[in-house]
Amino acid sequence: MLVTLAGGVGAARLLSGLVQVVDPADITAVVNTADDLVLHGLHISPDLDTVTYTLAGLDNKETGWGLAGETWHVMERLEALGGEHWFRLGDRDLATHLYRTQRLSEGATLSEVTAEVAARLGVGVRLLPMTDDPVRTRLTLAEDASDGQEVSFQHYFVRLAHSVPVRSLRFEGAEAAGPAPGVLDAIESAAQVICCPSNPLVSIGPLLAVPGVRPALEARREDVVAISPIVAGTALKGPADRLLAELGHESSVVGVARLYVDWAGTLVIDEADAALADEVARTGMRCLVTPTVMGTPERAAALAKVVIDAPR
Amino acid sequence: MLVTLAGGVGAARLLSGLVQVVDPADITAVVNTADDLVLHGLHISPDLDTVTYTLAGLDNKETGWGLAGETWHVMERLEALGGEHWFRLGDRDLATHLYRTQRLSEGATLSEVTAEVAARLGVGVRLLPMTDDPVRTRLTLAEDASDGQEVSFQHYFVRLAHSVPVRSLRFEGAEAAGPAPGVLDAIESAAQVICCPSNPLVSIGPLLAVPGVRPALEARREDVVAISPIVAGTALKGPADRLLAELGHESSVVGVARLYVDWAGTLVIDEADAALADEVARTGMRCLVTPTVMGTPERAAALAKVVIDAPR
Repeated sequence: MLVTLAGGVGAARLLSGLVQVVDPADITAVVNTADDLVLHGLHISPDLDTVTYTLAGLDNKETGWGLAGETWHVMERLEALGGEHWFRLGDRDLATHLYRTQRLSEGATLSEVTAEVAARLGVGVRLLPMTDDPVRTRLTLAEDASDGQEVSFQHYFVRLAHSVPVRSLRFEGAEAAGPAPGVLDAIESAAQVICCPSNPLVSIGPLLAVPGVRPALEARREDVVAISPIVAGTALKGPADRLLAELGHESSVVGVARLYVDWAGTLVIDEADAALADEVARTGMRCLVTPTVMGTPERAAALAKVVIDAPR
Repeated sequence: MLVTLAGGVGAARLLSGLVQVVDPADITAVVNTADDLVLHGLHISPDLDTVTYTLAGLDNKETGWGLAGETWHVMERLEALGGEHWFRLGDRDLATHLYRTQRLSEGATLSEVTAEVAARLGVGVRLLPMTDDPVRTRLTLAEDASDGQEVSFQHYFVRLAHSVPVRSLRFEGAEAAGPAPGVLDAIESAAQVICCPSNPLVSIGPLLAVPGVRPALEARREDVVAISPIVAGTALKGPADRLLAELGHESSVVGVARLYVDWAGTLVIDEADAALADEVARTGMRCLVTPTVMGTPERAAALAKVVIDAPR
């Protein structure tokens, strides 16, 4: 059994590689939910949906989010009504949010709803939200940019197009949250734990903030393999590089290693960063150099193969 | 100034006739909200939407509900996910519900949202929900049909296709509700109050149950003109005829007159019921006989003309 720690797009890509080399039924993905939002009354779980849609083969490969062949009738009309339309929700994607919101209102947990949607879409990987409780990433913007306003993750990420500097972040509700059923058991009993190439601060960070998860990972440190989402100093997608720098970390594989060293034994870095392998090793992590950019399904599968064969 | 008491389709038809013969800016419609429901987390106001869409010229004339030229991408996907799909929500219609739900979550009142949507869609009539408070029609089904189960209005009307007998009904929340801002003022100051050909029990009934509305109407009794929704003993649409019979009333213009006589001075009945005009008059209402079936815009306008010219 494998456990993956997952954010959105990067994690979805790695998982789509893993299912080519491992039986999907042997994979559990623990997915970030601190990006979730309630908008128009609907409970939206962007990372869970990205992973689910990708594993179902329904993902929109051009945009990197949402569904392929999507239509936008609701959104166009909402815009005409003067409604909030900065968070783009396609017609078919909306059905997922309607389903989730209705089931939650009936008393189902997010874990249960996630499993139901995955089963309906034929996803063989077991998908677990990191928690069934509300945990929300809140970012305080740098003072010169916005008077130190605190905003939600999606406000920062989508509405502001993650183009403003951030001074600090926190995971609202994390202290009171518990890991979703099965999360700690999965980490404890897994043959290997794979930390996907997701944003260390706002995708993996929330998972570590859920009480019990970090100690569980520390106890399995030698079997935890992380893939750096930073390649040659930059993030392939999203603001991970800038966030690392703005929040006092190094935007490099070395910076990632310093964040992960306490609970991950191995860091997989891209060939572009081969010159930094020794420095990564000096943080205390084993370092594995391999192509990590998953431009094609074949490359994703090749990376997955390297990861599951990583020496421990 | 005219005030109309409105349910859904029948009221929308009469209003579309009235705006042909009266300046829309001189018309206030007080609309039933006891059919409202929250589904998929969305606040849906079927009667307000039917009236709004019809006056905006966007109504689907074939189905009698929803928008013309509608698409169903969300619903099709929701059905594929195993979600609740008995209440059909078109893509463009959904945008209204997303807009309303978001605005309500921001603290706007239903009155404010209703005015915003109407303004965006170019509706000149002033539309007021009967109340900004939650009032919900609840129907107890007859025991032989369902063990006396109590259900929501839309459960009865849509999910059960109003095909089961009803034993009783109540308007949950009515005692604690207040009329929406402007409702009582409009009734008090109107030159005429028109009770649309809507279901007496589940469309007009909730309006009368909002504290203050019935006394306000009684005080204006001589200027209140009602149009019977019952023609030749049957409802043109919906279950008004069966509901009247099941709940101990006569399913006829006479039964309608007995329900309205305390607060309406005149009842307009269809030519098909001309033989009952004297019996209506014996209830204490003036009775006006004219074609009331609004099959075309011209017929709706002709009926509207008769109503506003009704002798008082």
